[in-house]
Amino acid sequence: MSVEAERKSEPGVVAPRYFEFGSQNDGLTLDSGQVLGPVRICYESYGTLNADASNAILLLHAFSGDAHAAGYHSSDDRHPGWWHSMVGPGRPFDTDLYFVICSNVLGGCQGSTGPGSVNPETGDRYGLEFPVITIHDMVKAQIRLMDHLGIQKLLAVAGGSMGGMQALEWASRYSSRVQGAIILASTSRLSAQGIAFNAVGRNAIMSDPRFRDGCYYDGEPPTRGLSIARMVGHITYLSDESMRMKFGRRLQDRDSMDFSFADQFEVESYLEYKGGTFVDRFDANSYIFLSKAIDYFDMETTHGSLENAFATTSSKFLILSFSSDWLYPPYQSREIVRALMRKQKDVSYCEISSPYGHDSFLLETERQAPMIRAFLSTLSQDRTMDGVP
Amino acid sequence: MSVEAERKSEPGVVAPRYFEFGSQNDGLTLDSGQVLGPVRICYESYGTLNADASNAILLLHAFSGDAHAAGYHSSDDRHPGWWHSMVGPGRPFDTDLYFVICSNVLGGCQGSTGPGSVNPETGDRYGLEFPVITIHDMVKAQIRLMDHLGIQKLLAVAGGSMGGMQALEWASRYSSRVQGAIILASTSRLSAQGIAFNAVGRNAIMSDPRFRDGCYYDGEPPTRGLSIARMVGHITYLSDESMRMKFGRRLQDRDSMDFSFADQFEVESYLEYKGGTFVDRFDANSYIFLSKAIDYFDMETTHGSLENAFATTSSKFLILSFSSDWLYPPYQSREIVRALMRKQKDVSYCEISSPYGHDSFLLETERQAPMIRAFLSTLSQDRTMDGVP
Repeated sequence: MSVEAERKSEPGVVAPRYFEFGSQNDGLTLDSGQVLGPVRICYESYGTLNADASNAILLLHAFSGDAHAAGYHSSDDRHPGWWHSMVGPGRPFDTDLYFVICSNVLGGCQGSTGPGSVNPETGDRYGLEFPVITIHDMVKAQIRLMDHLGIQKLLAVAGGSMGGMQALEWASRYSSRVQGAIILASTSRLSAQGIAFNAVGRNAIMSDPRFRDGCYYDGEPPTRGLSIARMVGHITYLSDESMRMKFGRRLQDRDSMDFSFADQFEVESYLEYKGGTFVDRFDANSYIFLSKAIDYFDMETTHGSLENAFATTSSKFLILSFSSDWLYPPYQSREIVRALMRKQKDVSYCEISSPYGHDSFLLETERQAPMIRAFLSTLSQDRTMDGVP
Repeated sequence: MSVEAERKSEPGVVAPRYFEFGSQNDGLTLDSGQVLGPVRICYESYGTLNADASNAILLLHAFSGDAHAAGYHSSDDRHPGWWHSMVGPGRPFDTDLYFVICSNVLGGCQGSTGPGSVNPETGDRYGLEFPVITIHDMVKAQIRLMDHLGIQKLLAVAGGSMGGMQALEWASRYSSRVQGAIILASTSRLSAQGIAFNAVGRNAIMSDPRFRDGCYYDGEPPTRGLSIARMVGHITYLSDESMRMKFGRRLQDRDSMDFSFADQFEVESYLEYKGGTFVDRFDANSYIFLSKAIDYFDMETTHGSLENAFATTSSKFLILSFSSDWLYPPYQSREIVRALMRKQKDVSYCEISSPYGHDSFLLETERQAPMIRAFLSTLSQDRTMDGVP
């Protein structure tokens, strides 16, 4: 067990940490066959690893997420981590019981190696020279991190959306290293509609003249294109109903239309604001590489069938979908559940009725909490009874 | 009755015609209060107007449609009009029985006055100086065309999507001039989600450096931005299911991924192709003005309530929605139907089960045909019995 893992639970302020491995010649072998090195992984942890390293949970973030799942980065930081309401003492990912880890994905832009990192071969940033990565490649980097932290077998992996894809890869390919997988609002393969939305986002980025084939790091980044890509994304994260509840047809800063181009609906201003703030924290090249990784995710094709993908898994599964999620609709979760059941695997499934669309997995924490709590508790009991690891 | 209206049915080749009215000072008074003139309306007609001008049907096109509803523009033209399968001898809009007209909307770019027309005040193209127009303004221009053609009362108006909005305006405000309204895949007000998609399209156009505040007519038009806008639009016209049926996850020009940036799914190539061809026939400024007109369409706010909007109508209604249409979902059609029923109006409604999304109204012609045929037949009988006009 490493020194990092021994530190005590920090309920408030957390600091990102960095783990680096591999070199230019001896790095991470990617699904493409290319070798990437060195690789740096940014991660955070909450709670304390127990003596036999049996209480570790790895949280897996979604497309635009980062390692900062909970807590604050400083005492005057107003924005906690992306799953703060789920992580902490007494919360479902209970830091009094569990050692909770979250790392920024490979290909990301928030501390881990990605297209904005320096390519050791050239001394310049990778840009589009960065190798094409897959969801599986992200998991391979996470396994290196677990090795580094002295965690042989995770109690659980948990994630929504792209995070759920990573959880599926963990449980499908590395079930000896993960006891349970919590998969929220996810899918075993991206739909044609999902690919189409990602293609629009990439087109918007690449059409921005500032994009310059991805070599924009020494100048102005393609903020207009990235902002449009994010606007499209945001629409897919919400639902028709949640947009109606949140904005309806209200006008921004006025009560009635005056038939000028200044007339704008609140939903337009919201999207433009969201697109505009996104560009401050996200790299356009990461948008391209991560969205490609999502497009390529297809457990059925990779393993011949979805049943094959789960044939040898020993992990338990908790799968949650959300009724109004039209990006990764419930029927896609049910396909996973059916494949697991046909292989007589241990799977719990619930479709949560919610109006918030794909974003429900981040918002419906109270509805998820009891199920996640119970699932983790069962995993802990299994572990005690089995005497693992 | 005008000379144009007397010409015989042309089953094959049709020619667009032009009607111009108004001057710079004496034109069309728009909802904004601005006066637009001169106004030119491009239209086509099929079949023959009868002696008492009682057999005329006005077809109303959708967002990117035009006056070319049926027939061919030349003997070697391979692409017939957008509703060709519905218009002709023996077809639902039977040119042996009816005189069928279709005109390009005000604000459009396919023959009628729009932002690409010359502003008589400046001698330059309007561009963004074009006045903001509404769906109602489009209908006002159509009424002038009907006056010109000597048609006091239309047997029917019919349209899908934005065309359905125009049909609703006709029947709500001018029911003395229209006996029946056929409304397909439409809505009485655009949803927040619909506004959001339109906002993304406009942003993509306006972010294109070639857009130059809409003054691009003397140079290269903003084709990249317009193409992205169209890609977004296309996704909303299809459904998750129809995209899965049509493309699935098939790769373009290859059997398996090679993890390069050249890997592309068929659905990506399709969208790029559709976006790329659209720019040859559509003006980016028209995209902006027409999408704004759709955004502004809100019968509830305009009339105080949807019931008020239909309080005095004497028109009959046939309303069709499509199960997989998520742009203008069936519940929006049902809201119209309920308001009409509460006002004890004559309305027939059918939700057609179809996987083709919003595009169903252009594709499911066989399913619509018997209902439209029967509705038109009833209208004709009513007219004979009432002795109208």
